[in-house]
Amino acid sequence: MNLVDQPDPPKVAGGEAERQTELIRLRYRDDMAADGPWNEVIATILSHRSVRAFLPTKLPAGTLERLVAAASAASTSSNLQTWSVVAIEDQARKDRLAILGAEQKFISQCPLFLVWCVDHSRLHLAGAERQMTLGGLDYLEPFMVGVVDAALAAQNAAIAAESLGLGFVYIGAMRNRPEDVAAELGLPSGVMGLFGMCVGYADPTRPADIKVRLPQNAVLHREQYHADSMPEVIAAYDPRLVEFQREQAMRETPWTKLATERVKDIEALRGRDRMRQALNNLGFPIR
Amino acid sequence: MNLVDQPDPPKVAGGEAERQTELIRLRYRDDMAADGPWNEVIATILSHRSVRAFLPTKLPAGTLERLVAAASAASTSSNLQTWSVVAIEDQARKDRLAILGAEQKFISQCPLFLVWCVDHSRLHLAGAERQMTLGGLDYLEPFMVGVVDAALAAQNAAIAAESLGLGFVYIGAMRNRPEDVAAELGLPSGVMGLFGMCVGYADPTRPADIKVRLPQNAVLHREQYHADSMPEVIAAYDPRLVEFQREQAMRETPWTKLATERVKDIEALRGRDRMRQALNNLGFPIR
Repeated sequence: MNLVDQPDPPKVAGGEAERQTELIRLRYRDDMAADGPWNEVIATILSHRSVRAFLPTKLPAGTLERLVAAASAASTSSNLQTWSVVAIEDQARKDRLAILGAEQKFISQCPLFLVWCVDHSRLHLAGAERQMTLGGLDYLEPFMVGVVDAALAAQNAAIAAESLGLGFVYIGAMRNRPEDVAAELGLPSGVMGLFGMCVGYADPTRPADIKVRLPQNAVLHREQYHADSMPEVIAAYDPRLVEFQREQAMRETPWTKLATERVKDIEALRGRDRMRQALNNLGFPIR
Repeated sequence: MNLVDQPDPPKVAGGEAERQTELIRLRYRDDMAADGPWNEVIATILSHRSVRAFLPTKLPAGTLERLVAAASAASTSSNLQTWSVVAIEDQARKDRLAILGAEQKFISQCPLFLVWCVDHSRLHLAGAERQMTLGGLDYLEPFMVGVVDAALAAQNAAIAAESLGLGFVYIGAMRNRPEDVAAELGLPSGVMGLFGMCVGYADPTRPADIKVRLPQNAVLHREQYHADSMPEVIAAYDPRLVEFQREQAMRETPWTKLATERVKDIEALRGRDRMRQALNNLGFPIR
């Protein structure tokens, strides 16, 4: 077996060409060309939709370990591996975490709830072992490293889950009350729950759909950032999101309104304005 | 076409069973069982290795757009989409970014260099349009949202790239001199380069290998965090990493030494101790 072998060249034919066109159309709802390299991995990634209604069906044996292996395979800054994941299946604990997580009922409902953590505790242990104080960990930068490490690991697990026919949704509300989440999960100093992830089989009676995103000329910049055209690019996105909301029988709200309301003032942060204090309490000085 | 169709059930047979065993063995080098659900997506994810030597071969037409579509398909907190990517192919600009990025020569060498950014600028634009000041953006929390959004997007692009036979490596050193990177890329206020990513075809004469990671019982916790066994778990990892280094003809250094040296003091942060000041200068108050 030669691990350096490259995957088969992409093939696009018949039903796959139609699938490709549809996935790109639903993602952007603009005149974005659908052609380009294609394979099953890319199709899996482009098919993502967040699932918020789950069947009670348990995951097959070995699935959690496979998702964590996918997470371990992600890149990590300087091999520091400053992340951990807590896997919760106990119903009472899921119910308590749902209360901490803005009472989102799918936290209780999903068969597997994962809390992805920034984890400096193994570095502190290694430092103690070597009788070092590790003053570098007191700064914002190594906390950012942990946030990136945890997110890369989680996204690998997320793609692996979707490839197995599972659905998931990230739960940012795990940051609403970080100390309470840490207490519930028994996190040591230097560990914080960055976000949750509900995992399970999607309830087919309540299907999720592909959400339309900002167009590529909003997020992709060639050589240098192009800011001049951005107001028109954003304005063009508003009606596409409203069209999606209308199809979903959701309240019709343009992105510019939704997004600005979400960050307009301290109250909109739902307690997360005290994140720095919470992180200090959890062992991250964030200098 | 029914987009709710689930992928084919995982099949493991013949050469695939051998591949699965080998990928798990190389990733952990312990007694981790290799069986579990399997498919081509998971195989792609588990095959990751960071590539630091590239051929000059350009990427096929449409590849960048496909990688960005993969990035757009990633989850994003409250659909805020607080990320952007700058794609650099100009040799002189890559050379200047290599200087800013700790003089890592693969930044100059790779055909495509991506800088993944935290981007609040579209929110500021939307706020100005609606005559709102968006005081919520002044806090650490929405910056963390941008870090997570950018990392999830980038990892989707990374997996898509590897599925196409491309290699990549993340470049954290884009954070060594954040203001200089922002100036080079013409980033507006509220945008910062979080990390770079070299993309291209790996030089087959300088193959990368799968790096051994901490075992699953270091990063996976069931129901609650188990800290008690961690010193022994970490100690068991040290010789596995040294074994990998020996095979690669790298300097043999246990993880506990490598990791603690990387964060032992301010000097070890290579200028990144001033991250908060740099972020303030770039339009993130980080309250």
